[in-house]
Amino acid sequence: MFENASRTEISSLGEFGLIQHLTKNFMLKNNTLKGVGDDAAVITPTEGHKTVVSTDLLVEGVHFDLSYFPMKHLGYKAVVVNLSDIYAMNATPKQITVSLAMSSRFSLEAVEELYTGIQLACEHYQVDLIGGDTSSSKQGLMISVTAIGEAKEEALAYRSGAKENELLVVSGDLGGAYCGYQLLEREKRVYLDNPSVQPDLVGFDYIIERQLKPEARKDIIEILKNLNIQPTSMMDVSDGLASECFHLAKASGVGITLYEEKIPIDPSTYNFARELDLDPTLCALSGGEDYELLFTIKQEDFSKLEHHADFSIIGFVNEATAGMHMISKSGNKHPLQAQGWTAF
Amino acid sequence: MFENASRTEISSLGEFGLIQHLTKNFMLKNNTLKGVGDDAAVITPTEGHKTVVSTDLLVEGVHFDLSYFPMKHLGYKAVVVNLSDIYAMNATPKQITVSLAMSSRFSLEAVEELYTGIQLACEHYQVDLIGGDTSSSKQGLMISVTAIGEAKEEALAYRSGAKENELLVVSGDLGGAYCGYQLLEREKRVYLDNPSVQPDLVGFDYIIERQLKPEARKDIIEILKNLNIQPTSMMDVSDGLASECFHLAKASGVGITLYEEKIPIDPSTYNFARELDLDPTLCALSGGEDYELLFTIKQEDFSKLEHHADFSIIGFVNEATAGMHMISKSGNKHPLQAQGWTAF
Repeated sequence: MFENASRTEISSLGEFGLIQHLTKNFMLKNNTLKGVGDDAAVITPTEGHKTVVSTDLLVEGVHFDLSYFPMKHLGYKAVVVNLSDIYAMNATPKQITVSLAMSSRFSLEAVEELYTGIQLACEHYQVDLIGGDTSSSKQGLMISVTAIGEAKEEALAYRSGAKENELLVVSGDLGGAYCGYQLLEREKRVYLDNPSVQPDLVGFDYIIERQLKPEARKDIIEILKNLNIQPTSMMDVSDGLASECFHLAKASGVGITLYEEKIPIDPSTYNFARELDLDPTLCALSGGEDYELLFTIKQEDFSKLEHHADFSIIGFVNEATAGMHMISKSGNKHPLQAQGWTAF
Repeated sequence: MFENASRTEISSLGEFGLIQHLTKNFMLKNNTLKGVGDDAAVITPTEGHKTVVSTDLLVEGVHFDLSYFPMKHLGYKAVVVNLSDIYAMNATPKQITVSLAMSSRFSLEAVEELYTGIQLACEHYQVDLIGGDTSSSKQGLMISVTAIGEAKEEALAYRSGAKENELLVVSGDLGGAYCGYQLLEREKRVYLDNPSVQPDLVGFDYIIERQLKPEARKDIIEILKNLNIQPTSMMDVSDGLASECFHLAKASGVGITLYEEKIPIDPSTYNFARELDLDPTLCALSGGEDYELLFTIKQEDFSKLEHHADFSIIGFVNEATAGMHMISKSGNKHPLQAQGWTAF
């Protein structure tokens, strides 16, 4: 589905020609002294700042399905999921490297589409592409991205900083990316059964976008800074809210209580989940890929976020012995289950 | 061949358990503030230094053949090829990230072997493993490594700094890794034809080691510093001397003249090449994977390296219009061909 009408074999360019060709339109905007083209890239670290590094791998058939994932969106998403990790440290991403392994089934045009998406993300988030490697593979497409960012030490938000009685906050809404995935998988099955049936995606633009074109919450980092809020701990929601709560609690040596009614779920997520007989709360708890930010704040910062549309205060931090719980809409207390998606 | 007697499925650990399990014995030695375990790693950049970043991808069936490449050696080599790029900037590597994609054919024991090799390299080169990602793949093993290092700006050696009349120098010897590869491939074919035949590797330890356990030339960087030599340009020899000469010449806007008789070739490389009716010089020019350092120096530094066993002065820098040539042992001038190995 991703093949264009014209097809150029990648082998016609060679490895060095390919990298040069794909990266020629990328401009350097940050503290990058030397980008693609030498043995290594060179960065001038900002004085008094820490360097923050994150890396992620996207594998065809495991993390994405090219029968409905456009190459441009895939390139964009591969960058975004890495930047999200840098923002989750309360840091600012500055550079990325992108390595690709791909089989001969991929044409140059397909890889150009992928790089168009990578470039869009670089422009939107103001990061520099500084290096990478390309290789053939026996089967499929694999994208490895490393993101490098900066922050002052006192701004850094680790997973380990949550303290008893602090408030648990999440940005945006949850469960949408998972429902978008379910919708795309459903339409794929329908299409495979009968290719003449057009996909029925009407009214579900939002959840499809959550899956195919997620954004990293750069804006949230800026809002927190403007509100003068230093998160005591933070991480991004890539594997589902429940799983992330467990990570945060374990790293901080605390327990967490969630309020089901406070978990932000978009109406289209809610409606689609109901259509599929799924529990919308479970989609938020276990769905993953929302790339929202989950963080804890001191009680004194409550009023700054209380009525802010971008944030939901969804729970609070207990002592470790109190464990992990969710208070349901009916007021019952349930043990929280970690059911985050894993790649194995 | 890489499977151990006992076999544990990776899926029994889950993704987070796996990373934790594999990295638990790694110690942080450098300016790493936070390693594996958060959304991102945190580094304290050394004041007044530049940060140097390089990334490489190794794909099964393209870059390595597990029928004769032990997993431990593969882990070691995956790190070394990246560190080599950092040294090639005249910089010191400090951190690495390692991402893996692997099919269910790989047992936990096999991946542990790989990480044993990674750890050996980290210890030998004094670098910190600070992050990574693991994923399943539909087929085969893929390793993506990013290396981060540091150098003072005035020490950095780019490919672009070579000037007319400077001398071209290479460390160690060339062609060995390629001959080791040819030997291992030959013995594999013999084994596949008749599994009862024992491999005939006697006397070829050196070239096998060059292929299976290459080293990055950390020592060369130190020697140059002690000799007070600032290379005017530098790169590592990963794709064969000829190809690297072309890269250096293009980046610097110069031409290069090589002397065939000066190209360093180990006797066991020479003997094996002859046994296979290969031209030893061609093995050095086009073989690749030697991970030696190729660099240019000013004429005034000639006497410092002239009699040094670790270096060979193999040519000089021309003006660009003079082009790329090699003076053969018989004194004839031949145009140099770029025949470096490429991954496509």
